[in-house]
Amino acid sequence: MEIGMIGLGRMGGNMAQRLLLGGHHVVAYDQNPDAIAANASNGATPADSVANLIDQLSPPRAVWLMLPAGEVTEAAIAHLSALLSPDDAIIDGGNANYKDTIRRGATLSERGIHLLDAGTSGGVWGLAEGYSLMVGGAADAFRRLEPIFQTLAPGPDRGYSRVGPTGAGHFTKMVHNGVEYGLMQAYAEGFELLQAKQDDFDLDLLAIAKTWQHGSVVRSWLLDMAVRALAAEGDLASLASYVDDSGEGRWTVQESVELAVPTPVITAALYQRFRSRQPAPFSGKMLAALRNQFGGHTVRPSEP
Amino acid sequence: MEIGMIGLGRMGGNMAQRLLLGGHHVVAYDQNPDAIAANASNGATPADSVANLIDQLSPPRAVWLMLPAGEVTEAAIAHLSALLSPDDAIIDGGNANYKDTIRRGATLSERGIHLLDAGTSGGVWGLAEGYSLMVGGAADAFRRLEPIFQTLAPGPDRGYSRVGPTGAGHFTKMVHNGVEYGLMQAYAEGFELLQAKQDDFDLDLLAIAKTWQHGSVVRSWLLDMAVRALAAEGDLASLASYVDDSGEGRWTVQESVELAVPTPVITAALYQRFRSRQPAPFSGKMLAALRNQFGGHTVRPSEP
Repeated sequence: MEIGMIGLGRMGGNMAQRLLLGGHHVVAYDQNPDAIAANASNGATPADSVANLIDQLSPPRAVWLMLPAGEVTEAAIAHLSALLSPDDAIIDGGNANYKDTIRRGATLSERGIHLLDAGTSGGVWGLAEGYSLMVGGAADAFRRLEPIFQTLAPGPDRGYSRVGPTGAGHFTKMVHNGVEYGLMQAYAEGFELLQAKQDDFDLDLLAIAKTWQHGSVVRSWLLDMAVRALAAEGDLASLASYVDDSGEGRWTVQESVELAVPTPVITAALYQRFRSRQPAPFSGKMLAALRNQFGGHTVRPSEP
Repeated sequence: MEIGMIGLGRMGGNMAQRLLLGGHHVVAYDQNPDAIAANASNGATPADSVANLIDQLSPPRAVWLMLPAGEVTEAAIAHLSALLSPDDAIIDGGNANYKDTIRRGATLSERGIHLLDAGTSGGVWGLAEGYSLMVGGAADAFRRLEPIFQTLAPGPDRGYSRVGPTGAGHFTKMVHNGVEYGLMQAYAEGFELLQAKQDDFDLDLLAIAKTWQHGSVVRSWLLDMAVRALAAEGDLASLASYVDDSGEGRWTVQESVELAVPTPVITAALYQRFRSRQPAPFSGKMLAALRNQFGGHTVRPSEP
């Protein structure tokens, strides 16, 4: 079917390509003209503005947004809201906060425009393997767009579903990413323990990770990624021990607090990422000072 | 090849069966005569005592132990030590503490007997899918037994490896299980968050879990197990929120403390299991008492 794609970055560009390979007609726009040109060379129909993209789609239109969450998405939806017609649909495939999505959906519905939130997992592997899609929105709009979801998913019968009304998709994706933080930290801690005993036992971390890939309870796609990383560099020496976060883990922990649902593992995983970015956290200085005050314990001077 | 199997419980019986299906000659013993008979009906050669099992094997012998860790394994190895000959090998497939394994290996090596520790993962699925085997022990003994490992593993070229000397296998399996605790708790917390919003969004937890199975970053074998559990009973209403542990998580945390390696996620996962078994933990009473003392906050009386 016909779809507009706004946002042709790493995720959006790959998704446009997967849709093109699946036989869909993709009209593509990005603020970066090079990205539009690259997608056009893959078979997408280029648009030189959002208005031009909309002009090139027949009603009822479907426009997929693959943009950074927050202000960029907010502005794009406001812009589209003024240009689209009743019964058109916006699909937000980015990682918006589900509360923003509910609010935006309510505003758009006043104009008769559908907002579907398609929480999208799969990263750079999605182009080849397909994306897992957790979709929120009206059931009839979901059904109309199902050919798109079927192409983006790993197969026409799996890896996508309507999980609930508008907002439910981003909520589910938020929880998905919270779980992902916990899973990653669990593996990371295990490999650190192995690494700490590496000399005693002459452990080969890559061989162990590969052994775990087959038949073990901990086999997973993330473990496959660990194997790739350790195969490229067995001691990860070239990497700083510094881990970013892009917001969904924070939202998951905030949601845990709102719902009074204890999530000690997801929370600890998020805090370890914060800790990874602190060369000399103040809490460490405070602890050292307190030990020194009450017990005269030795302290270390700060690095110059 | 020829192997003795001592301990024909859920794991040992399945492993004996997989070895028989792979064409090996298995001499089987258990303290329970019914288990011996069941294995004999699968093609194993029954032994009515440990001594009888050893009599039925040709040197250099290989005896696989699949027994509860601790005293049962300790006693079995002591018993075997008196009966076996130099160059025979004991393979401990159970979940022994790696420090016990190192000690036992040193004692056995004085008599020229090899101890291989084969950390075994795969649970009840291992019979059909094969086991992941993390093996410690002397390289030549490992090579001699490789046909056994190749049959037990998911394939002759994957899912097993010699990870280091005696003790390294159980160490690696301990860390594996620690990681498993963290992974399980991460999923459990995510599903609890989804469940807490289930009514707002009419979320179908099973549909979400199935969606995550395909293309998502959190897909894994444990997620497949979550799908099975939710498919059997969507709200898990028949289960108590009570989770046992069998020791390896505790050892992982103790090892973290010994090595001064922070494992906040694995530790939190273990503590949540402890918490699950406390109907009314004293810390909760203490917190309530303190809030009442300093702020006059309302407290609840204990259940009669």
